[in-house]
Amino acid sequence: MTPEEFRRHGHDVVEWVAAYMERVRELPIVSTVNPGEIRARLPDAAPEEPEPFAALLRDLDEIVLPGITHWQAPGWFAYFPANASGPSILAELVAAGLGAQGMLWATSPAVTEIEAHVLDWLVDLLGLPQHFKTAVGPGGGVIQTSASDSTHLVHVVARDRAVGDGASIEHLVAYGSWQAHSSVERGARVAGFSHVRLLDADDALALRAGALRDAVEQDRAAGLVPTIVTSAVGTTATGAVDPVAAVAEIAGKYGLWHHVDAAWAGSAMLCEEQRAHQAGAERADSYTFNPHKWLFTNFDCNVLWVADRAPLITSLSILPPYLRNAASESGEVIDYRDWHVPLGRRFRALKLWWVLRSYGAGGLRRHVREHIALAAELGRRLDEHPRLERVAPVSFALVCFRHADGNPATEALAAAINAHPDLYVTPSAIGDMRFVRVAVGQTQTTAEDVERLWKAITDAA
Amino acid sequence: MTPEEFRRHGHDVVEWVAAYMERVRELPIVSTVNPGEIRARLPDAAPEEPEPFAALLRDLDEIVLPGITHWQAPGWFAYFPANASGPSILAELVAAGLGAQGMLWATSPAVTEIEAHVLDWLVDLLGLPQHFKTAVGPGGGVIQTSASDSTHLVHVVARDRAVGDGASIEHLVAYGSWQAHSSVERGARVAGFSHVRLLDADDALALRAGALRDAVEQDRAAGLVPTIVTSAVGTTATGAVDPVAAVAEIAGKYGLWHHVDAAWAGSAMLCEEQRAHQAGAERADSYTFNPHKWLFTNFDCNVLWVADRAPLITSLSILPPYLRNAASESGEVIDYRDWHVPLGRRFRALKLWWVLRSYGAGGLRRHVREHIALAAELGRRLDEHPRLERVAPVSFALVCFRHADGNPATEALAAAINAHPDLYVTPSAIGDMRFVRVAVGQTQTTAEDVERLWKAITDAA
Repeated sequence: MTPEEFRRHGHDVVEWVAAYMERVRELPIVSTVNPGEIRARLPDAAPEEPEPFAALLRDLDEIVLPGITHWQAPGWFAYFPANASGPSILAELVAAGLGAQGMLWATSPAVTEIEAHVLDWLVDLLGLPQHFKTAVGPGGGVIQTSASDSTHLVHVVARDRAVGDGASIEHLVAYGSWQAHSSVERGARVAGFSHVRLLDADDALALRAGALRDAVEQDRAAGLVPTIVTSAVGTTATGAVDPVAAVAEIAGKYGLWHHVDAAWAGSAMLCEEQRAHQAGAERADSYTFNPHKWLFTNFDCNVLWVADRAPLITSLSILPPYLRNAASESGEVIDYRDWHVPLGRRFRALKLWWVLRSYGAGGLRRHVREHIALAAELGRRLDEHPRLERVAPVSFALVCFRHADGNPATEALAAAINAHPDLYVTPSAIGDMRFVRVAVGQTQTTAEDVERLWKAITDAA
Repeated sequence: MTPEEFRRHGHDVVEWVAAYMERVRELPIVSTVNPGEIRARLPDAAPEEPEPFAALLRDLDEIVLPGITHWQAPGWFAYFPANASGPSILAELVAAGLGAQGMLWATSPAVTEIEAHVLDWLVDLLGLPQHFKTAVGPGGGVIQTSASDSTHLVHVVARDRAVGDGASIEHLVAYGSWQAHSSVERGARVAGFSHVRLLDADDALALRAGALRDAVEQDRAAGLVPTIVTSAVGTTATGAVDPVAAVAEIAGKYGLWHHVDAAWAGSAMLCEEQRAHQAGAERADSYTFNPHKWLFTNFDCNVLWVADRAPLITSLSILPPYLRNAASESGEVIDYRDWHVPLGRRFRALKLWWVLRSYGAGGLRRHVREHIALAAELGRRLDEHPRLERVAPVSFALVCFRHADGNPATEALAAAINAHPDLYVTPSAIGDMRFVRVAVGQTQTTAEDVERLWKAITDAA
């Protein structure tokens, strides 16, 4: 494709995406294809000869769209949002066009420096400690693919620290609440932990600090080595907030790495009035949040901050001859390849930079506050409804409720809501209790969408 | 940004990228900024109020471009190519615009099915065994972020298999040649291996099968558990090809997981005449290659195939209530979240699909053959030059040579080549021997670019 052809096809694709943005609110959110239906429309082998670009665009409509569930629809209340925005989408286009690698500072200095700088901006925007900044240190921030990667990675670093101190890997223990995201257990197991304690939670489904202290002491008494604990600020199931300060206290006392997982709720920390929920995070060893969830920056863009970059780099640095260069050897630059498992890396900071500048910090706060207010209003209405009940406090912009008549009625309620083609919520469960999970936060979601959801809820209840 | 604003700004960005494609051959390839220079141009804090889109575009030229090293320039012969192409770039735009998540089949069936299908196409295109296909099984392919992720992952799976068989994690041993990519040692260490053997290579810098057999037997005799070996098809340093069939034989005999790392050279397997280099791969447990290197598909797009998907899924599957769904429970679908460490995933198969269709298999072969022919011709000229000598056979499209006068002359030669703003090669080393590494394969590279390089080489030599 010549630049001239790129220009022509590129304009067509921009029109296609703009039209998609316009019509996404009219499309049924959930794809209804059956397993294998998309594949059945594809030829058995790759074409031998080139196909015209028009064929690709045609198949976007005819083959791809029927198999897409529309995460960018304003009636999206399922899972967590994975919200995109215009500046973010266009930054992806630029990053792909530049095709620059940021594995080393030297392989494209702007990729590294803009990333380091924008993550330092975010330290201030989220009220995190100054030592998380690369420009201050000894910590720093880095973009990873997903919170699962970050959580896995800190388990590796904590593991290496403990093993370096003489512990056997077979004795290491990782902790989180039983409501922690699956990435905590999975990250620990992938990192080689054979002991993972998913601890008791309190009535609000937050980690009980006492349960953590007891488990750590029991494990020590049994000759095991408590190594890392993850605090969730906003669990996936119900948005529960673990007692970060109390966990920090225990982690400090017993020498555990303390990881804070604010994958979704981290974006709420833009708003000063939310920051009490993360009090204690200033003493954490690491903190992760996903701009690709609730900060208008399309997937993938996860941020990991560490309080000290040295153990991270110690775990990951291997320097073959073909990557040696004067800048790295000067010690004056960051080489992000030593900050994660992948070697190559694309210019993901560009979209974050463009989003922060396009919205402005004030604009981002207004959007996030609006989502939180919409969720609070939904919670108030639920509390007044005779047949519905919340199963957890409204947390940030997440609302969890059930039908007073129990599980079958709750499942029927979720199904009735999702029968509306322009609404999508997640049916979930805590233990044996079924509930409906509503996450407000899609880029385009407004009060009218929540009103539409409320009508669907009350009609069905 | 409204759809109408997106349309307007999107057209501007397409023009910017098209113009970048046109002028990339005129820009000095290597950024010459000093450490901190880009950051110094950025404000200390994020803007409070929105900035106009024009400011973002302006800063692309004024702040970003001076800090970009141009991997997409036709004079790019450094590292390996990370080649992009028009259809790939535009597919990234569509994928970002759709903003769909492919973590489960159910969260957007097209994302999973097109990925599974296109990777099955590639099994045939690269001459790999049928059981690597998801449609055949028991294996299957999955897109990962980078070959480092894939290599790390198979070390985790092999580790879990060995531990499941009763071995202590502290006794497991991973093997590769000392010329293996750094991701082999790093992947093994991140996966918790404390024993990593980087074995002797032969004169062609390929793994010596005898060295592997000896090491495995010694380790077994010492009570250790040989667990996994990586064969490289095309090492990073010189493109050396390990004896895959002999390694497969040893892996089979001693029960090791056998991983084939064809990160770069996998693309050459499009051409039937190259496939003898991977003979034996049909018995491998896993195989990885990077369309984002030499297959015109911009980063990130790594492919991992496994011969049996069951142990992979066993290592990675954790199913919380909010991810349960009828399709997953039916067992009829692939949920790719169980195939890698991240949970979320974007629609990376779209660009691979578009590249395969836009070029056609025949078009891809023609391009790859052209690169290989250009490298061969460069090798022939080097062999005839009295002051230059190859340090390894020309491998696929990689040419490694030095100045006959030794290291200082070789370093001066590399520096002289790289003093040309429109050329970029990698100075490297094997042990104490410095050499110049030329990787042909950038999307736009033609005979004229290699001619220009040859002139620079001979002028300096």
